[in-house]
Amino acid sequence: MDINTPWLNSLLDSWLNEDLGRGDLTNCALTGQYGSAYWITKQNGIFCGGALATQLFKRLNASVQVNLLIQDGESFTIGERLLEVKGPAETLVAVERTALNLTMRLSGIATATAALVKKLEGTNVRLADTRKTTPGLRVLEKYAFRCGGGINHRLGLDDAAMLKENHIAWAGGITPALKAIRTTTPWPSKIIVEVENPDQAEEAIRAGVDGILLDEITPDILHNLVPKLRELASTRSGHQASKQVMLEASGVDPMNLQAFAATGIDLISTSAPITRSSWIDFSMRFENTN
Amino acid sequence: MDINTPWLNSLLDSWLNEDLGRGDLTNCALTGQYGSAYWITKQNGIFCGGALATQLFKRLNASVQVNLLIQDGESFTIGERLLEVKGPAETLVAVERTALNLTMRLSGIATATAALVKKLEGTNVRLADTRKTTPGLRVLEKYAFRCGGGINHRLGLDDAAMLKENHIAWAGGITPALKAIRTTTPWPSKIIVEVENPDQAEEAIRAGVDGILLDEITPDILHNLVPKLRELASTRSGHQASKQVMLEASGVDPMNLQAFAATGIDLISTSAPITRSSWIDFSMRFENTN
Amino acid sequence: MDINTPWLNSLLDSWLNEDLGRGDLTNCALTGQYGSAYWITKQNGIFCGGALATQLFKRLNASVQVNLLIQDGESFTIGERLLEVKGPAETLVAVERTALNLTMRLSGIATATAALVKKLEGTNVRLADTRKTTPGLRVLEKYAFRCGGGINHRLGLDDAAMLKENHIAWAGGITPALKAIRTTTPWPSKIIVEVENPDQAEEAIRAGVDGILLDEITPDILHNLVPKLRELASTRSGHQASKQVMLEASGVDPMNLQAFAATGIDLISTSAPITRSSWIDFSMRFENTN
Amino acid sequence: MDINTPWLNSLLDSWLNEDLGRGDLTNCALTGQYGSAYWITKQNGIFCGGALATQLFKRLNASVQVNLLIQDGESFTIGERLLEVKGPAETLVAVERTALNLTMRLSGIATATAALVKKLEGTNVRLADTRKTTPGLRVLEKYAFRCGGGINHRLGLDDAAMLKENHIAWAGGITPALKAIRTTTPWPSKIIVEVENPDQAEEAIRAGVDGILLDEITPDILHNLVPKLRELASTRSGHQASKQVMLEASGVDPMNLQAFAATGIDLISTSAPITRSSWIDFSMRFENTN
Amino acid sequence: MDINTPWLNSLLDSWLNEDLGRGDLTNCALTGQYGSAYWITKQNGIFCGGALATQLFKRLNASVQVNLLIQDGESFTIGERLLEVKGPAETLVAVERTALNLTMRLSGIATATAALVKKLEGTNVRLADTRKTTPGLRVLEKYAFRCGGGINHRLGLDDAAMLKENHIAWAGGITPALKAIRTTTPWPSKIIVEVENPDQAEEAIRAGVDGILLDEITPDILHNLVPKLRELASTRSGHQASKQVMLEASGVDPMNLQAFAATGIDLISTSAPITRSSWIDFSMRFENTN
Amino acid sequence: MDINTPWLNSLLDSWLNEDLGRGDLTNCALTGQYGSAYWITKQNGIFCGGALATQLFKRLNASVQVNLLIQDGESFTIGERLLEVKGPAETLVAVERTALNLTMRLSGIATATAALVKKLEGTNVRLADTRKTTPGLRVLEKYAFRCGGGINHRLGLDDAAMLKENHIAWAGGITPALKAIRTTTPWPSKIIVEVENPDQAEEAIRAGVDGILLDEITPDILHNLVPKLRELASTRSGHQASKQVMLEASGVDPMNLQAFAATGIDLISTSAPITRSSWIDFSMRFENTN
Repeated sequence: MDINTPWLNSLLDSWLNEDLGRGDLTNCALTGQYGSAYWITKQNGIFCGGALATQLFKRLNASVQVNLLIQDGESFTIGERLLEVKGPAETLVAVERTALNLTMRLSGIATATAALVKKLEGTNVRLADTRKTTPGLRVLEKYAFRCGGGINHRLGLDDAAMLKENHIAWAGGITPALKAIRTTTPWPSKIIVEVENPDQAEEAIRAGVDGILLDEITPDILHNLVPKLRELASTRSGHQASKQVMLEASGVDPMNLQAFAATGIDLISTSAPITRSSWIDFSMRFENTN
Repeated sequence: MDINTPWLNSLLDSWLNEDLGRGDLTNCALTGQYGSAYWITKQNGIFCGGALATQLFKRLNASVQVNLLIQDGESFTIGERLLEVKGPAETLVAVERTALNLTMRLSGIATATAALVKKLEGTNVRLADTRKTTPGLRVLEKYAFRCGGGINHRLGLDDAAMLKENHIAWAGGITPALKAIRTTTPWPSKIIVEVENPDQAEEAIRAGVDGILLDEITPDILHNLVPKLRELASTRSGHQASKQVMLEASGVDPMNLQAFAATGIDLISTSAPITRSSWIDFSMRFENTN
Repeated sequence: MDINTPWLNSLLDSWLNEDLGRGDLTNCALTGQYGSAYWITKQNGIFCGGALATQLFKRLNASVQVNLLIQDGESFTIGERLLEVKGPAETLVAVERTALNLTMRLSGIATATAALVKKLEGTNVRLADTRKTTPGLRVLEKYAFRCGGGINHRLGLDDAAMLKENHIAWAGGITPALKAIRTTTPWPSKIIVEVENPDQAEEAIRAGVDGILLDEITPDILHNLVPKLRELASTRSGHQASKQVMLEASGVDPMNLQAFAATGIDLISTSAPITRSSWIDFSMRFENTN
Repeated sequence: MDINTPWLNSLLDSWLNEDLGRGDLTNCALTGQYGSAYWITKQNGIFCGGALATQLFKRLNASVQVNLLIQDGESFTIGERLLEVKGPAETLVAVERTALNLTMRLSGIATATAALVKKLEGTNVRLADTRKTTPGLRVLEKYAFRCGGGINHRLGLDDAAMLKENHIAWAGGITPALKAIRTTTPWPSKIIVEVENPDQAEEAIRAGVDGILLDEITPDILHNLVPKLRELASTRSGHQASKQVMLEASGVDPMNLQAFAATGIDLISTSAPITRSSWIDFSMRFENTN
Repeated sequence: MDINTPWLNSLLDSWLNEDLGRGDLTNCALTGQYGSAYWITKQNGIFCGGALATQLFKRLNASVQVNLLIQDGESFTIGERLLEVKGPAETLVAVERTALNLTMRLSGIATATAALVKKLEGTNVRLADTRKTTPGLRVLEKYAFRCGGGINHRLGLDDAAMLKENHIAWAGGITPALKAIRTTTPWPSKIIVEVENPDQAEEAIRAGVDGILLDEITPDILHNLVPKLRELASTRSGHQASKQVMLEASGVDPMNLQAFAATGIDLISTSAPITRSSWIDFSMRFENTN
Repeated sequence: MDINTPWLNSLLDSWLNEDLGRGDLTNCALTGQYGSAYWITKQNGIFCGGALATQLFKRLNASVQVNLLIQDGESFTIGERLLEVKGPAETLVAVERTALNLTMRLSGIATATAALVKKLEGTNVRLADTRKTTPGLRVLEKYAFRCGGGINHRLGLDDAAMLKENHIAWAGGITPALKAIRTTTPWPSKIIVEVENPDQAEEAIRAGVDGILLDEITPDILHNLVPKLRELASTRSGHQASKQVMLEASGVDPMNLQAFAATGIDLISTSAPITRSSWIDFSMRFENTN
């Protein structure tokens, strides 16, 4: 996460503006004061957002000093100090809420992701995210998902092509759909098809796709289907034809991850760590001034 | 919620950009196609985000027609159709994820808020939100909170002044803090003090504040404290001195709302519907094309 | 005024862009030169805009050194030096006009405000501004008004609710209007009604408003009306009902402030220091360049 | 004034955002209502800003209908109706203040400019503006100046090159300064020198400038100087050398315009209509709904 | 190319602003006039930019009617009419230059691309672009490259991972570099290594990359290397291991395309159509008005 | 070129964003590494863009050190080092392509301009550019044109007024067109007319224009026309009437510059260095790390 990318800094600025509005009404009570504070966690979890929080403080006042006591992706336990900050009191107060909100949200995602990833330990299956992310936070929430041990699926509509039922219907079938899409898809981006049954999966493989999203197909069916699809892929001909295919299950109940993992698939994709996690509760405590 | 406010439209645009990136790689398979689709819910809840979703579709293509089957703040039941949309296939596909993400998030908040508000039925106590909101979504998440039956607390650092422990420490006490703050606070914005014990509460009332946030004070203590504070307020002198004070409890366990409500306070503020709610699961289904 | 708020810096940048356009055509005659200059005033008045002017110079070149010889809100007399600046000649020349324009305008407002505030000395009445401000300068002009000794009215349409005649007509009366508005107004923002006669004022008080704007009502009428309205407010019942009301007169001829002040009102609001003031004439003088 | 230029629309949007903030708190009392209103003037003057006001209404809601009863640059008399507007009540209320503020300011400038232009009637001298304009309003205030009958001086630092005392000092004299500047100045932009005495004026003419700004030189001195400078210009040699020079007086007391006009100069430049004018008082009156 | 994507419209707006600046000085001579015009080409070539030109006209004035006589990707011959446009004269004049500049540039790229693609006819080799694109025009220049028959390489640093010599040096070798990169690369984005000799190529294949960029390696060497690399890839083990690899040559003299194509590689990447092409000369001709 | 102008920095940021997208996928392989590199040229030419490239590096990371070995406008020879850079490896890699793309493009323009300027050596004729510039790069490409020894024509539609055939047709002739335009044109901006034959040229001079663009008129005709037009201009009467006119030829074949120069015109304007030049090939080479 390169914190200096201009669009990211603009986004951080927009969040500071959101809370500050026309100006903190209390800052005239703080003028000229210098303060220090630390963050403490009220829960266990996996941390995410340290560099972002640091940047938020520094965007408002470059003289603020932030000391990160934990790195992104590391675990913390209740009562642990996460971060120390020193600087003009009006800056600390002005940034507090925005920095906490962001970090609590991202750490909630990292923590929930790690819990699911743990259930896949000992398997070759990886946990992938989806495009179900909070508007405006896509890149950061996907970063939190990685901090929790997951792997990212495509970042948007433009870095991989995924065909769904309706693309196929509108284009008149998988083959014409793929043909059209290959004219615009840069060669380094993969083409994926979402299927709802074994027949579609086989058709997609024959059509040469790089990955198949097997949506809401039970582990029972997958047990037979997965090796069949791999076999089919390995026979694709032509030197540019991939003999390999990425098989991904979605629509998986988090309680049932092991059953899916046992089917030989490569990936399980889930939105749960992003759509069903709670924020981790952090608190900023001010210390003796001067 | 005036959907035409320029900053809101810019925000919606930025969210479309976020998912579209350099362009949907599949849209060449959809060129010239026209489609229709509807949204269906897989859970019960309270709806929020209809006008926003409509605007997202129309921002990308003004010719898209959206038919809202439910209004913001109304309840829905599993399997219910929420919205119908018709237009160019490439637009429907391009906006689908962003519009769903936003609406699922906001409806999750409205639904969680309504559940808590219901627990306060029959009391005079209202449920208020906090500034713990997702960066970038402050106004919309607070709107969802209202759709669920709650009332908004201040929107940012600039529309009301809230003094916390450290403001008071830095300013040298409640009285000098209030004096400083009154020079910048527009007269129509209220001044609130967050207190952690009864003594602070009494001092704040004597100093003339409009509201007191009683943080993590138990119902037992509040039972005696609330009437005492009201009595104290009613004796404030001078025609500009308010005889009334807004008493608000925070740090309240959602399981314990009734006990707090019974103490005679005016408000309970909670971040739970925003920081601890799950998204409601909606799905967009495409229908027969022509 | 926190000068580092991102939106404020963007605004300052846009003003530099406005004058610089595609680039100062004279800067090739200044390359490599280093200069110093000071600002001098050709009139008496109250200063406003020092931190803003400083920031304008530093936005274009962080190496510029600005030495403020006067603080915002302080008075100056003709011929006094206000500010000294050193740095690359091309920066000094490029920022000169924008920084002077802003400061001359804001000091004009502060000076005009102070003149009116002085007329209210010895009374309990405060001078408040209005929403008649130059587009784009709302926050800064209101800051200048405070520097002149005034108090701010609401900052925009969103930090307090003011009902006017037509709101009431459209909503079907004061009671339904207030009921609708209370669902969206955050509790810390006050609700005000603008009235044109005593009957409306009494109705508004009974409906529970926090403030009444008495527009173009003569001092004669106010003399009797003010105590009556206060009495009425003091009898409002219920512990959440405010017993106090803010009474504000508008449409007041500046020559007549004392007569209004004598009626017992709390505030006089006026746009005159913003809509009818002249800029104070400052000049930037360059000094010997080595 | 092409109202559709993207930067101008962005500016209008930013002004709507400024007043609307997080949203008009009263608009829930107006939902579904449709209204009409007209603008009336409480003073005489010259109108400016009709298309801008129209665009402000339409930016927020394209269905609003605006009927301009007066064109920019035309005069109005007290009590005259200027503009009629119909549309959703919440839009009318939301735009009212911003549209009035802009138009009242611009009409104030046009009116003040016309008053000075009138004093020059019967002479060949034109009134020009300066770069003393409100930050953010440069193009619009200069447009208002034209509506009042004036002519614009340069629009910024980039559309003409003006050398002042310090440019000349830093560059080591008029000749080297001009040489440097001619490498960057596009040929269609003129080069002007500001002088403070006759000797500098003569030197500038010999150096080939297009215009001379005679700052704070009395009419007495100008009477002799003007013909001398014209004579000198007419003898400049070389086919690219202009035989003509634009002579401009600045630092002119508005009471003294005729005396300066009689000296044979071409232009008098003044900031007074922009820095010393009051807003014209317009009012928006709502009419019977339905 | 979805012309309605918000960022694209903002870009078009910024280009209109660039030419219009503070406003077209000639538009007062055109007020109220309505005109029509057509575009004619003075050279043969492949067209690109029709929808973009149309959008430029419509952004400034939605009432302008544009009739495209040729589609993007189609060829045109000298003297052919390409586009007709009708609307307010001031809009036609204001947009003319910007729309022509864009279309002439993009058509130049499409034309140059098509010339190279033609040289590869009858082979299985495709022509790919690079990241050498004009700042600000990346997506559009890559679109023009597709219009000329080429295929896009990655769009930026974020949609595929390409390791170069220094990545490998800094990371301590290909294997650790790939390991690090796989934690952040979304699974649907391919990983490519740029190599300068056969040994590096073999190492990269063993490390499991998806593609190899063979930079400045001669056809002679490639003749033997290509089959060897394919053989090596086909023996990679594990079901997730791709048996296929994309082989791409760069640093190819355009005169020498056939020799490279004969080596069995998959792609030739070149920046020449973007960095070495001339604009096609189009002209806008106005027709009789009314 | 003042590199700190806010709009220019925003433009540089937008270009960094364009290549970085959602983030460089390889930067995790570079974390914590520090590197150095230099730029080398593979061709001869004139350099342009050093300060811009420096700023691009520093925008992403202020700690990067850039050492320019050549100044804008200076010539370089094949194999020469142009620039050295040191800093965090991830920054060097992230900025490399954008900085090279910009500098290679601008140096291509400067080099092509210098070649044409050289052909005019020994004449009094200057080479001017046109408004045919890449959208978004107007100011920078015109700067490159100056670095190559050319002079700029107007920068946009707003800093000089140029009448073309259709302006004249729509306005009803040259005289009414000029009359209209003079009301909006700031006095320091010149008025130019583009003509296609001698008669139009004479009419334009009589109407008082500052410059005439003689489009596609042969040197033969110009030989007689130029002195005639100068004679005509010298007889214009009135002290404000310029006796001088700028005569400019356009539509000139670069092979034919000397023939045009010999006709006595002042300027030849050409778009060729911008629309027909190739990028100069620069390469960034990384050096031993640590």
